[in-house]
Formats: sequence, structure tokens, C-alpha cells
Amino acid sequence: MFKHRHLLGIEGLSQADITTLLDLADQYAAQNRGPNKHGQALAGLTQVNMFFENSTRTQASFEIAGMRLGADVMNMSMQASSIKKGETLIDTAMTLNAMHPDLLVVRHPHSGAVNLLASKVNCAVLNAGDGRHEHPTQALLDALTIRRRKGRLHRLTVAICGDIAHSRVARSNILLLGRMENRVRLIGPPTLIPTGMSELGVEVTDNMREGLKGVDVVMMLRLQKERMDGGFIPSTREYYHRFGLDAEKLACANPDAIVMHPGPMNRGVEIDGTIADDINVSVIQEQVEMGVAVRMAAMDLLARNLREKASVEV
Amino acid sequence: MFKHRHLLGIEGLSQADITTLLDLADQYAAQNRGPNKHGQALAGLTQVNMFFENSTRTQASFEIAGMRLGADVMNMSMQASSIKKGETLIDTAMTLNAMHPDLLVVRHPHSGAVNLLASKVNCAVLNAGDGRHEHPTQALLDALTIRRRKGRLHRLTVAICGDIAHSRVARSNILLLGRMENRVRLIGPPTLIPTGMSELGVEVTDNMREGLKGVDVVMMLRLQKERMDGGFIPSTREYYHRFGLDAEKLACANPDAIVMHPGPMNRGVEIDGTIADDINVSVIQEQVEMGVAVRMAAMDLLARNLREKASVEV
Amino acid sequence: MFKHRHLLGIEGLSQADITTLLDLADQYAAQNRGPNKHGQALAGLTQVNMFFENSTRTQASFEIAGMRLGADVMNMSMQASSIKKGETLIDTAMTLNAMHPDLLVVRHPHSGAVNLLASKVNCAVLNAGDGRHEHPTQALLDALTIRRRKGRLHRLTVAICGDIAHSRVARSNILLLGRMENRVRLIGPPTLIPTGMSELGVEVTDNMREGLKGVDVVMMLRLQKERMDGGFIPSTREYYHRFGLDAEKLACANPDAIVMHPGPMNRGVEIDGTIADDINVSVIQEQVEMGVAVRMAAMDLLARNLREKASVEV
Repeated sequence: MFKHRHLLGIEGLSQADITTLLDLADQYAAQNRGPNKHGQALAGLTQVNMFFENSTRTQASFEIAGMRLGADVMNMSMQASSIKKGETLIDTAMTLNAMHPDLLVVRHPHSGAVNLLASKVNCAVLNAGDGRHEHPTQALLDALTIRRRKGRLHRLTVAICGDIAHSRVARSNILLLGRMENRVRLIGPPTLIPTGMSELGVEVTDNMREGLKGVDVVMMLRLQKERMDGGFIPSTREYYHRFGLDAEKLACANPDAIVMHPGPMNRGVEIDGTIADDINVSVIQEQVEMGVAVRMAAMDLLARNLREKASVEV
Repeated sequence: MFKHRHLLGIEGLSQADITTLLDLADQYAAQNRGPNKHGQALAGLTQVNMFFENSTRTQASFEIAGMRLGADVMNMSMQASSIKKGETLIDTAMTLNAMHPDLLVVRHPHSGAVNLLASKVNCAVLNAGDGRHEHPTQALLDALTIRRRKGRLHRLTVAICGDIAHSRVARSNILLLGRMENRVRLIGPPTLIPTGMSELGVEVTDNMREGLKGVDVVMMLRLQKERMDGGFIPSTREYYHRFGLDAEKLACANPDAIVMHPGPMNRGVEIDGTIADDINVSVIQEQVEMGVAVRMAAMDLLARNLREKASVEV
Repeated sequence: MFKHRHLLGIEGLSQADITTLLDLADQYAAQNRGPNKHGQALAGLTQVNMFFENSTRTQASFEIAGMRLGADVMNMSMQASSIKKGETLIDTAMTLNAMHPDLLVVRHPHSGAVNLLASKVNCAVLNAGDGRHEHPTQALLDALTIRRRKGRLHRLTVAICGDIAHSRVARSNILLLGRMENRVRLIGPPTLIPTGMSELGVEVTDNMREGLKGVDVVMMLRLQKERMDGGFIPSTREYYHRFGLDAEKLACANPDAIVMHPGPMNRGVEIDGTIADDINVSVIQEQVEMGVAVRMAAMDLLARNLREKASVEV
């Protein structure tokens, strides 16, 4: 199971791949809660984090994951890099590749950039978010959190709410939840939901109260004002009124529904702070916790495949 | 001894706490001078440095300390972080907390921010300087340097000179030196000394020559022009004339007095470069050296308490 | 062999020093291609990278090298540092020195700054490039690449082409190639070649086609527009026409000539992209690969000398 060379997206993963990864992540989650968090699964290997876009929390999660697995972990600050000197993405990638990293974690503002990079290098590449395309470890950590809280990861009804259009998180989650045979409902203003989504087998509505009916999981998205170039920018007040998750709207969902958010949150914009902090419904901290575990599992599995391949070649 | 969960300030430390910590730091100081500087006291643990305010030297000191104790050390660049995306300090702290760090080193521009943060997380928190409040490891490294040079840490007369008003270093040193039963004299322009200091049991004067009489230790402070918002800013020339430490003023102190400075120095502003470099009187380099040792001792003691607590809970 | 305390430049190295270092680097190059890249040669030691000038690729190379040798590696971001608070270079160096690093890797925009720094500290210093002075590890990695491709590192004819005036890479390469008894030819516009170069025993020409005749190695340099303050700035188009390496000019060199570039490349300025990517002639990726190996060898040798010295002193 999980015989992939890279983790570029949810798209290429089977049900069995996902289950294998989440099972291993569950073990790492238990280890991370114990007194000794440090293992040797990546000992002797070099992990490089290349973030062409700032993301303190995702980078920290991958860095902690790698260190705890015993890897040599290096962060390359790509804003300050040779790219400023006019080097192309491919030249940067080839240069790094020549230093023989084993695992390369990449975030990039352009959709497809990580796949392009992966086609040029010899190491295993993990997509840490590329443009509006995919963010597979986010979808996997969401899935693990749901499975732990709901006891299963199939036949659930999940609402993904808000700014779908600018969200790779939404896209990866739609793919994963669909693959595991869940029902997905997208809720948001028509201007923030791309056309053609219903072809992906999801339901679409702009009515939050209607949409939340019968839902087991409420996944809120960050309103990404920084990515809305030129287009429609909703007023915060109006947006919160119609799409912000408050107690009254949440009451439409199933009584045991859980609330998720990938962070960082805009309190009072897409979510009421009281709900975010209510440990009876909010699993936002557990999502972050599972993030480290999922990334440990993903890097561990990719490294096993690297080593197997190396031993086959020898 | 030293049964604390956090190191937030000198305020909560007893004489025995301070002595325990300095004794252990002395051992680490010896180890740091030897050929093998790397131990295992923090092996398996994750240390995170969160600096919301730049401080290359303090951050480097904590980072070296953690690495030499075998921790997995991660720096989070908080200027570039999610805070820019509108996240609150508490959300940032809770997110990090969910990744299960063991030791969290925090510097923050606001007094009290580190205590607030410590109240929210499960790990041990070390205050690396918060606003004008406390900077406990600086006071401890100063104390260790004094004890090594003077052979004791009680019944000494210590002058703290300069910009007391903007200095958490001064505040933590006043608390520690008082706790260890030393006599403290504050010397500086009245505009840079907060009112009510005499209630802390210290003497106050604006006459440098008078103030230095009979002093065993001369502690100079950096003139923090960058923190003087709107208020009185002395001219550098006038300031040096009246409060800058030169050979002539130093001659008023005891013949074997030592000169200290927390760095970085403004040569020719608060201190004459010749005195700073005179290894017969200046202990400025030893302060930096003891900084690493004191931070190793502090993190080691906190980690022992963490582990004891974990074993009690199990 | 190689009994040096620092690696400040090629200037002080003998033929035997260079051969010793390259032989060890060859071993590390083999190790870096294998499944376990992590050793213990620097275990227990602290390596600090102080880059006063940005260089993502060189810093990454030194960082990976140190981690793979088991060192505790710390990057100090010197742009964000105390230097901004008015501290002098020497104060910064002395502060760091007091933390007892073992290996200090320094890049600095001023020629001679690294030598000055080395004279003040107790640890081993490696020059990672200082102004227009030296960049010894670059020359050593170029030498190793040549030796691997050509089977020898003597009696070769090497052309160094382009912006010689602003290039410490050129300077270190001229010294190394001369020391190893090769013939060096400098090719570039007279405005970009310093006067008096022929005294170094090199040939000088501004005719690329003439200059490349009979050449075994073509070393292209980056056109460093960012360093051309006030002086002559050639137009990119004109420059490429006369000095850019394309297939037609390369045909003047020996049929088995190899093409080198220290990176980052300006494609279409000093080199045609097609040539840079042609694995039959371009060894640019191998240069980067040898960079890690050469830096591992250099730090290993310096650490051996440190330890020997320490054991003699004890």
C-alpha cells in the first residue's frame, strides 16, 4: 500500500492509500502526546522545506514532523533567494536537487508549480500547497480529525463553507471526502464558488441554514481577501451575517456536528470566536495536532519507498 | 529545589532556586569550554523559539543552548507569521501548543504577554524578555558572572546605570540582586528613572561620580533610543558627558570593580570603548558566555520538572 | 597535510593541501549519493553560519554539509541582527565567540572582513565569500569537478569568461588553477578585467572566439550588475552577442571541453540556456553537488586540527 514516489495531491490516492496513511498517523499522534517524541524513521536523510509563499504554521508543522523523525531538516527562505537574482524555478530546483535531498516540501503560489518541480528532481516531493490546486496534507489531517471524532470516514455529510473559489484546501477536501464516499455540500456566495462544481458530485447552495441541515461536519474556510485580485470583495459585516458560523446557524446542523477551520481564523468574519473556542464542538486544535502526525506518516511512507527503490537499484 | 513549571521572571524565584540554577549553569559553562559540548538532557524534546521582537544574540544563545542539550530546536519567525493574517496572540499560542512542544522560549514587545501565553499552553515557557517587565535569564547570567568574578553573590554593592525606565534587564536585576541581599544603586537622569524605585529598597541618584563610590559592580545599560516614543530623548554627547562610563568616572568605584553591559553596546554613548575592551575590568564577553550556560541550566531544570510531572500523571 | 586553522582563501594553500582536501571530498561525494548521508565527524561541535550578504545556495550548501557531519548548525541572520542596533563587526564577532562555536562560516560584502574576524575569534573560520577578495570553497568545488571530469587537475587550459572585475570566484580560481600548474586565460570586455592581471601569470583577451581556442574548461561568470556601482554597465544584448557562450563560440574550444558556471545563471545574458542544460558539456549541476562534498571535507579537516590542538593543550 502507498507505493507513491511523491505526495502531490489527493487526486492520485486510493482509499487504501488514505487508510494506510491515516493508520500510521494515528500511531504518531499517540507518540507525540508521550514523553519521547523523537524517532529514527528519517535518520540519515535530508529534508528541505522550500516555501515560496509564507506559511508559518504549515512550515512549522513539517519542520517539527521531520525533526521528530530524526531527519536533517533545512528551511530555505525562498523570498530571500536566488530567485531574486533572476534564476528560474527549474534552475533553483535543479540546484537543490544536486545537493541530494531526500524529501522536498514545497509551497508555491502557482497551481501546478509543485508538480513541475517534482518532474525534475530525484527526491520525494510533498506538496505543501500550490496556488488554488491542492494541499493534500491539509485534507489528510482534516480526514484524520474527522475519523477520530466520528469513528469513521465514510457516509458522513460534510459542509464546506465560504470562500471555495480561492481555496486549495476545499479542493483537496472535496477530492478526499468524495474518494471515501462521503456526501459533500458547498455553501457560499455564488461569486466565491467556481462554476461546474456539481460535476464533482457535490451539492452547492448559497443558503447557510439550508445547507447545514443534517450535516455531521462543518468545515469553515478562511476568507482569503489577500487573494481576491480585482474581483468581488464582500463586506466583512455582510459576509458574517450571511455566511459566518454563529450559534444560531450551527443549530441547523446535526446536534453532534463538529466544527473545523484550517486556520488562521478571522474571528467575527467567517466564524464566531465563541464557537471556535467551544471544545464541545470545535476540533480546530486537534486539526493542528493531527497535522504534525499526518506529515510524519506521509514522510515516513515516502522514505520507505525511497529506500526500497534504492535497494532494488543496488 | 526549583520546582517551577515556567521561568517567567525573577519575581517568583527563591534564594535556593537561584543558587540551584547557577550551580548547574557553572557545570554547563565548564562543559561548553571543553571539546564535546553536546549532551542528551533534552533528547526527545521539542524546543520552540518564538521571537515577536528581533534579538539575534538572545535567540542565538537559546538556540545553541537547546541544540547542545540534544533538543529538536525550531525558530518561528513571528514577524513573518500568521499574525500578519490577523490571528490573535492566543490563537497563535494555541496552534503551536497543539504541536506539543516541550519548551517554549518567548520574547514579546508587550509586558505581560509571556505570562498570558504561559497560562494557555501545556509546555514549559521561558520568558526571553517581555516589554519593560522581566528578562530573567539576563539577570541570571549577570548573577553567575558576578558570582564567578567576586566569589559571592551577596553583600555586594551594585550600580545599575543609565536608561532604567526602558529596561526589563534593570528590573530583573534589581529583583535578583535584592533577593540575594545585595545593595543596589540606580544612577541615571531623573527622566530615565521611574518614580517609586526607592520603594524597591534601592538607592537612586543622578550623580554618576557620587553613585559609583564604593561600588563592586558597575552595570551599564544600553540607551534604548528606539523605545523612547515621544518622550525625552537626551543628546548623545550630553548623555555621554554625564552618564557615559569612562576611566575617570570608573575611578570612583572600588579598585577591583567589574564592568558589565548586556549588549549590544553603543560605544561612545553609554560606555567608552576602551573600558569595554579592557579585560582587567570588563566582563562583557563572560556575560555572553554565561548566557548559554544559564539557559542550558534553566531548560534542563524545567525539563526535569516536566518529566517528573509526566511520570506522576502516568 | 592541511594543518591550517582557518580556510580564508586559496592564497595560503599548497598543492598538497588542495589534493588532500579534494581526495576527502571525493569520499564525501560518494557518501552523499548513497542511502545514508549522515555521519559523526563534527558530532558535539557547533557550526554557525553568519551571512552578512544573502546567498541562499551557498548557505544551504554549508548547512547541509554541517548537518550531514553531525554538527549542531545554527544560522544567524545578520541582516536582522544587532548590527542594525549600531554594534560593530568586531563586537558581533566577539559576542558570538563567547558562545564557543567551533566552526564559523562567514560571508561578508567587504574584502578582508573575514580575515579580520578570524584574527579575533578562537574557532575555525571558513570564508564563504568576502567582497571581491576570495571564495575558496567555490574554487575548490570547481577544481574537484574539473578533476573528476578531466581525470587530472594540472596542465589544463582553462578560460574564465566575463565579469572578472567583480568576481571573487574568478580570483580564487585563478589562484588555485595557477597553484596546480594550469594555464588560465581571462576573456571579457577590458572594462570588466582589472589591470595588472597578466602579472598573475594569466593571459588576457577581449576576443571570445580567439580566447576559447584550445581550451579544456570554459568557466562562465555571472554578470553582476548589482555590484556595478556607477561604472560601465554593458547592455545585455551587446554583452550576449560578444561574450555570451553559445554553440558557435563554444565550437572554438576543444571538442571535449566542459562548461562551468558558479550560479545563479542569467540565461541569455552570459550563457545560452541550451548549453547550460546540455549534459554532454555542462557540469553545472555537478559543481553544486561537489559544493556540499568540498565543504564537508573542509570542515572535517579543520575540526580534526581543532581537536588535535585541544588535545595538545590538555
